[in-house]
Amino acid sequence: MSLTDITIVEVGLRDGLQNEETILSTTVKQALVTRLIDAGVMELEVTSFVHPRWIPQLADAAQFAESLPREEGVRYRALVPNRKGLERALSTPIDEYAVFLSASETHNQKNINKSIAETIPVLKETVELAIEKGKRVRGYVSTVFGCPYEGDVSLKQVVEICEKLLEMGVYEISLGDTIGVATPNQVREKLKTLTKEIPVTKVAGHFHDTRGTALVNAYVALEEGVRTLDTSFGGLGGCPYAPGAAGNMATEDLVYMLEGMGVKTGINLEKLCQVSRLAGRHLGKTLPSKVLQSEGMREEEIEQ
Amino acid sequence: MSLTDITIVEVGLRDGLQNEETILSTTVKQALVTRLIDAGVMELEVTSFVHPRWIPQLADAAQFAESLPREEGVRYRALVPNRKGLERALSTPIDEYAVFLSASETHNQKNINKSIAETIPVLKETVELAIEKGKRVRGYVSTVFGCPYEGDVSLKQVVEICEKLLEMGVYEISLGDTIGVATPNQVREKLKTLTKEIPVTKVAGHFHDTRGTALVNAYVALEEGVRTLDTSFGGLGGCPYAPGAAGNMATEDLVYMLEGMGVKTGINLEKLCQVSRLAGRHLGKTLPSKVLQSEGMREEEIEQ
Repeated sequence: MSLTDITIVEVGLRDGLQNEETILSTTVKQALVTRLIDAGVMELEVTSFVHPRWIPQLADAAQFAESLPREEGVRYRALVPNRKGLERALSTPIDEYAVFLSASETHNQKNINKSIAETIPVLKETVELAIEKGKRVRGYVSTVFGCPYEGDVSLKQVVEICEKLLEMGVYEISLGDTIGVATPNQVREKLKTLTKEIPVTKVAGHFHDTRGTALVNAYVALEEGVRTLDTSFGGLGGCPYAPGAAGNMATEDLVYMLEGMGVKTGINLEKLCQVSRLAGRHLGKTLPSKVLQSEGMREEEIEQ
Repeated sequence: MSLTDITIVEVGLRDGLQNEETILSTTVKQALVTRLIDAGVMELEVTSFVHPRWIPQLADAAQFAESLPREEGVRYRALVPNRKGLERALSTPIDEYAVFLSASETHNQKNINKSIAETIPVLKETVELAIEKGKRVRGYVSTVFGCPYEGDVSLKQVVEICEKLLEMGVYEISLGDTIGVATPNQVREKLKTLTKEIPVTKVAGHFHDTRGTALVNAYVALEEGVRTLDTSFGGLGGCPYAPGAAGNMATEDLVYMLEGMGVKTGINLEKLCQVSRLAGRHLGKTLPSKVLQSEGMREEEIEQ
């Protein structure tokens, strides 16, 4: 497998934090983003412009977005649920946006409070306005590999949603294993079928490590031609009801694997582990990344 | 990848426990082995007949071995370092033995207190006596993918050691990523080269999850034709100096992946998680298996 031009999208500040019980202050988030950039992270999804009521962890979206350090080559991303959210985001220096929906009807209803059919036009007007304003938009499709309510999710449904997102103008679709149930053969088979309809260059992988399979699923996705993977520093985002349970694929673990495979990620693992230890102290827990834990939980003096 | 006849060798009671700080009583070990069998585990490496001084966690080797429940189809295995250890083991109902050495000179010296050249004849007389007594012997080669003292380990050295072990009469060689540094491309390349000299049917994979790569390395090993993998229930065996750090590949995590790939392992995941929770309570810690942790740390009433 020849691996070039791999993009790691760091989603810890958004997908990670929104699943943590503890709410971090904007000041702490600023410290984390600054250190992530110092560790070499270039693509950062930092917040979500949903209504503050829904995700209190990200209620400071506009304020945090306004305060982001400007560094050459760094791109900031944010989720926008609809036109209203996008309008709030457009007044901030966020570089690109992401819209989202679920491939499972029940999950979409519970998460967005709309049917999939009702969600599509909402996303369409959002994507169109963003593009009109000169911004790129990514699409997230969640529960691609399984739904907590419906179990198996039809790949035909996933492909249809992807096609609609691409028609709207999204440049990339991130396929989410939202509850971390995927296994490698399933990832390979679904990607082989899906990429007959959707170019693999437009596909990203978003794996959760709930059952330990994130890295092997990412490996298989790379073998199938996917070149963009979403991760959270420290593996942030575990379920608050299962102490120690894993969240997103940990950035540290993916970086360790990729570097061992000869890929230059540009990310300094030691510095990244320091960021995760800092976040862990503020969240009052040890983050689940195995690479982080193998570093031995050293209590470095990190100025805040 | 067509997957049939996969053997999972449960090494938690030996490789797992020998790396845990807390020493479990023989009674607790008996409860664990009984429950592992009830969960469907058939191949169990249960102890090591090294001098009790070296591994106090396994100092009850003979007593524990004598007390093992006899169940049809279940095979018990134990490590024997030399002829003296084997002689102690031969008086117990252990079904088969394993000898061990390291592919790294420094690691072998620190672990066995002999050079590799000095170790070979010790293993030879041990294997020959075991075979004379009608027993199968497995060979472990550790630090195949990296050594904590020497870094990279020569594959030529690994192949030479494997050839010597096969000449002695071992039926299988378990290649150990003792410190959990391997990444998938390395596993693939080393296995491709090694299996030009050693039949893949005689090779087992023994991966540690220290940096989160055990499952992906196991997946690649399966792709390369390996059909026997070593695991520890709960992922037992983390380093006592790094709380939360992972040990062996967790049986739960491998079983989850394999079942998701259509392999019938015969192991009941729910029952297995109960065994790991019981062990965790006795060890005073949460075991690192992700599948176990995703089950939510329920405090079931488990009679002891």
